[in-house]
Amino acid sequence: MNQNNNNFKCHIWFTEYHNNNVALSVRVKDILYMDKSEFQEIEIIDTYDFGKVLVLDNTFQTTERDEFIYHELISHIPLFTHPNPKNVLVIGGGDGGTVREVVKHKSVETVDFVELDRKVIEACKKYMPKLSCEIDNEKVNLIITDGIRYVAETDKKYDVIIVDCPDPVGPAKGLFEKEFYKNVFKCLNDDGIMVQQSESPLYNLDLIQNICRYLKDAGFKIIMPYTYPMPTYPSGFWSFTLASKKYSPLEVDEERIKEALKDMETKYYDEEVHKGIFLAAPKFLKDAVKKALE
Amino acid sequence: MNQNNNNFKCHIWFTEYHNNNVALSVRVKDILYMDKSEFQEIEIIDTYDFGKVLVLDNTFQTTERDEFIYHELISHIPLFTHPNPKNVLVIGGGDGGTVREVVKHKSVETVDFVELDRKVIEACKKYMPKLSCEIDNEKVNLIITDGIRYVAETDKKYDVIIVDCPDPVGPAKGLFEKEFYKNVFKCLNDDGIMVQQSESPLYNLDLIQNICRYLKDAGFKIIMPYTYPMPTYPSGFWSFTLASKKYSPLEVDEERIKEALKDMETKYYDEEVHKGIFLAAPKFLKDAVKKALE
Repeated sequence: MNQNNNNFKCHIWFTEYHNNNVALSVRVKDILYMDKSEFQEIEIIDTYDFGKVLVLDNTFQTTERDEFIYHELISHIPLFTHPNPKNVLVIGGGDGGTVREVVKHKSVETVDFVELDRKVIEACKKYMPKLSCEIDNEKVNLIITDGIRYVAETDKKYDVIIVDCPDPVGPAKGLFEKEFYKNVFKCLNDDGIMVQQSESPLYNLDLIQNICRYLKDAGFKIIMPYTYPMPTYPSGFWSFTLASKKYSPLEVDEERIKEALKDMETKYYDEEVHKGIFLAAPKFLKDAVKKALE
Repeated sequence: MNQNNNNFKCHIWFTEYHNNNVALSVRVKDILYMDKSEFQEIEIIDTYDFGKVLVLDNTFQTTERDEFIYHELISHIPLFTHPNPKNVLVIGGGDGGTVREVVKHKSVETVDFVELDRKVIEACKKYMPKLSCEIDNEKVNLIITDGIRYVAETDKKYDVIIVDCPDPVGPAKGLFEKEFYKNVFKCLNDDGIMVQQSESPLYNLDLIQNICRYLKDAGFKIIMPYTYPMPTYPSGFWSFTLASKKYSPLEVDEERIKEALKDMETKYYDEEVHKGIFLAAPKFLKDAVKKALE
């Protein structure tokens, strides 16, 4: 679209409905991309308040304004909990934001980046370079396939596995099932760590409890969810769940993190956030997880 | 409204616009109250997803679903940072949610509850009893007046002052100005603590920096913002700012809090949240506050 008058403000809104009872709308500046892949409908829009926004099947995936919160916390928490992560697997996250954070870690040698939908990668490489800028990094090995099948079939072992998945519907459903967590456990070294996007503590507490049960059954010793604000996801309040075979995020060496951060730009994460984010998780969530793990 | 058919779902939505670029909408079940006071337009609506909602001048104030986050964190953080709070002043918060949490503390002997708008109190007492249930508690002394004038004129001294204010527009503007913080400082004992609602770290970072500067000028030794999710406020990401003459929230006795919580029901706050919430504040906010206090 060619906008000739800078004083003109577009009257188009994008709206995501949640449970048909709540709706978040953002005013659209421009529609940059619209297509349908084998798996989903893909839109990239430019907005007045959130910058460029990736929308999959009418659901906010990531926005230029708030993506740093999500991508820093899904990456740096597991990568700094592990003392020396070398081989990392990222499942999902076709926008590239997670991979961008992972390659900031000097210890990381290879990132296997498994994404189902090539069209998402291509659209984000073209329209969201702030997120996709490291997809072609030489450490990154892009594999276009189903993450569920990948962890079932591969013989490789990783130090950290990051599951940057969408909501548990359609092709992502299997990323929240028992079998998947068993395979993730299998693909991790004996001191490995996994982290997964685990929805809203306000809307999806049952789901988080199920994830924790499955992770325990798979053999993980330490299972801890952590929460953060996510302005464009339903309720604005979101979670990741970390599962570890050996290392606890509460027992990290803060000085080591502080030192490493001198060479890494972050906006949300720091060595205090690392531990504080687990302590600050709401009581009702800690109670629910404790109950699930009994 | 009399709804005869339970299968009928109302098609009415309440929408709050932010900066004319973002909008949050909730589906309405019923309109319970609409009036205009000397100060503002007051609406109480029943909604499908957030229960009963108090709306002032077309802005979400509090909802039955998420109010526990706000009210627990504005109350228990300062009240447990102080080792023995007896006299508390609450400014604003006519819904009663803050006062309900304050009176849970056994050490608290009196709560002076200063609210500008009697109509808000009356409407919440009638339609939102889950929040307003302790307004008539014998410890609570309701004073209908302007909080700005109250702290300027009173000779009383408090252990904790909680400023549960709306956005800094209209009559609440003065609650974010230099003079107000000086008077709050004057009304606190030598080991007193104040806390204030301080808007969104994503949208209002300048405002938070100004608050911190004013608090420092007023004489406070320890000034620390903390953040939390607030699903129905713009960006879903909100803050309080704590200012203390003596005690740091990071140096509390966790065992004392744990013991006290045995007799107090909380859903969000616990002894881990108390300290963790300050550590977990995002780096960009800590950096901004550090800069403001230089």
